Amino acid sequence: MKDARQRNGEVEASEKKEAEAEAAHENGRVSDVVLGLDGGATSTVCVCMPLLPFSDHDLADPPPVLARAVAGCSNHNSVGETASKNTLEQVMAETLCKSGSTWSAVRAVCLGVSGVNHPRDQERILKWLRDIFPSHVKLYVHNDALAALASGTMGKLHGCVLIAGTGCISYGFSKDGREARAAGAGPLLGDWGSGYGIAAQALSAVVKAHDGRGQQTMLTDTILKALGLSSPDELIGWTYADPSWARIAALVPEVVSCAEAGDQIANKILVEAVQELAVCVKAVARRLCLCGEDGNGSFPIVMVGGVLEGNKSWDIGKEVINCIHKQYPEAYPIRPKVEPAVGAALLAMNFLLKESERHHNS
Amino acid sequence: MKDARQRNGEVEASEKKEAEAEAAHENGRVSDVVLGLDGGATSTVCVCMPLLPFSDHDLADPPPVLARAVAGCSNHNSVGETASKNTLEQVMAETLCKSGSTWSAVRAVCLGVSGVNHPRDQERILKWLRDIFPSHVKLYVHNDALAALASGTMGKLHGCVLIAGTGCISYGFSKDGREARAAGAGPLLGDWGSGYGIAAQALSAVVKAHDGRGQQTMLTDTILKALGLSSPDELIGWTYADPSWARIAALVPEVVSCAEAGDQIANKILVEAVQELAVCVKAVARRLCLCGEDGNGSFPIVMVGGVLEGNKSWDIGKEVINCIHKQYPEAYPIRPKVEPAVGAALLAMNFLLKESERHHNS
Repeated sequence: MKDARQRNGEVEASEKKEAEAEAAHENGRVSDVVLGLDGGATSTVCVCMPLLPFSDHDLADPPPVLARAVAGCSNHNSVGETASKNTLEQVMAETLCKSGSTWSAVRAVCLGVSGVNHPRDQERILKWLRDIFPSHVKLYVHNDALAALASGTMGKLHGCVLIAGTGCISYGFSKDGREARAAGAGPLLGDWGSGYGIAAQALSAVVKAHDGRGQQTMLTDTILKALGLSSPDELIGWTYADPSWARIAALVPEVVSCAEAGDQIANKILVEAVQELAVCVKAVARRLCLCGEDGNGSFPIVMVGGVLEGNKSWDIGKEVINCIHKQYPEAYPIRPKVEPAVGAALLAMNFLLKESERHHNS
Repeated sequence: MKDARQRNGEVEASEKKEAEAEAAHENGRVSDVVLGLDGGATSTVCVCMPLLPFSDHDLADPPPVLARAVAGCSNHNSVGETASKNTLEQVMAETLCKSGSTWSAVRAVCLGVSGVNHPRDQERILKWLRDIFPSHVKLYVHNDALAALASGTMGKLHGCVLIAGTGCISYGFSKDGREARAAGAGPLLGDWGSGYGIAAQALSAVVKAHDGRGQQTMLTDTILKALGLSSPDELIGWTYADPSWARIAALVPEVVSCAEAGDQIANKILVEAVQELAVCVKAVARRLCLCGEDGNGSFPIVMVGGVLEGNKSWDIGKEVINCIHKQYPEAYPIRPKVEPAVGAALLAMNFLLKESERHHNS
């Protein structure tokens, strides 16, 4: 609980920031900036970008990144509320410091944070931000998938994003502003196409081959070697010593290399992951009617995350697209050229632009 | 790290206990006892039983339980080494106190502890016990599945046990002393027939129905009602707020009632769990050749754990046996009349008997 003194201190600080900002604008000293944040399962990235006058900037050609900072995980489901809040505040402070900007130069902040699954999550994070920023700063909080979508569409909110890294999620936006998501709930709740899901299936296959429940697989030697273990019996201790999702998901390259070498079990795991990932996108596309009534319209699928990076001959991302094309032949993949945090900053500008237009029209 | 004084104290205590035991035996004051422990995923049960002269006792008709005590989880993978050790020591002290026995009356201790998956685990726990008991006390440490097997076979080490509660494991012993296990490695490593596995699949089905990846299911309303939640979106927060296996596994009755009411998704989850559980037993039976070369010999399957208790019309335990009978028609189920801790105590007596016979014959 905050005491009254602290609360007064915050109000004073907030009033001071507003006064500073006003003075700075009047004197023309400060260039307006926006902050974009991408809070994933393992790290949080923040970028600071200049806010150009609305008429000047084209979101397809984004302004440069003034500064970038990286911090640890900010998912409140994983690290708790206090740690999550501290991480977000620190990474923004570091970015502003590196960019030579000040808190008072910030016009808008967009946070794409994993773990925002419910309006309540959104409201809670907005409340923290209101403690940091004065009231004229526009604040937007969304699931990190939205930032990833915007990183592929350069801030445009249309189409679908598929993220498959440690976890997986599909998130989409229709032209008329409806949104939908699939997966993104952790492997216990069905995200089996994720890096964690793929690696967990592989570990399970090794144990099953060892105890006689499943057929022998190349995964056994490959994974034991990668982990420096001598027997599948040791996998139990290894797994539960630290069941962090990212640590398990780091075994995906071993699964891919076994599948490339012709191992049937590894191949089956990847084929099933491809199905799971394709089903995520198809569920979102169907609910939002992303390719029109006839199913032949086109829409972008922004492909993000280590699992989808096609630098192997067994290309998970390519197979996912092939699978989606059977139902939606005009869907087209986009591999983003900027990172999700930049996507979040572009979203902030896009939202500001829309608010300004609404203001202008009213 | 123990300092020298503590270590000397322990040696002195141990010498004192040995002297006491010798004196007590000479004076005929103390009846010899054995301790049996069952350390599961959620609790640890200890029983104290009188050790009758070997010629007098028949393991099919076990001596009475003098005292019983219950403590929390003692799986070192779940609670850590120190907590596990303390729990084991305290629950034994309480049992002895309740029985009116003393440490010096203990002839043998058998611990069946979950999380003993490797000789190293066994050695570590034996070392703790050696700090507590003087050297003439016989100590046996095994996976808790062995105690469960003995609870059905009244101490005889032959056949197979299938445990399906929060977790699941199958464990078997052949007449010539070979042993084998399947599963028991946690759901991440393939224990999908467990209570946790069943409930996790059900939660996953609810999320998939909600986001358009899967078909609608009765599980949604049933599980949300049981948890007091209003939307599947809230399941993510509920699940990861406390992902303890037992809390998830507690949803199995909801899955069974949906399957009984005709829900296809719930039915499919249970059918798959039955397959997984039957495969565990079949893998152990095949490796140990439990029913002879022709596959028609008989062997007991001791059935333990909430998932297998057949008090519903959708009877998971019965279906598992039906599935096993297709391959091994002469396998026969045993539902134990005593608890696994008593099984552990009977094992202690059995091991003592064998050592005595070996001693006698040599």
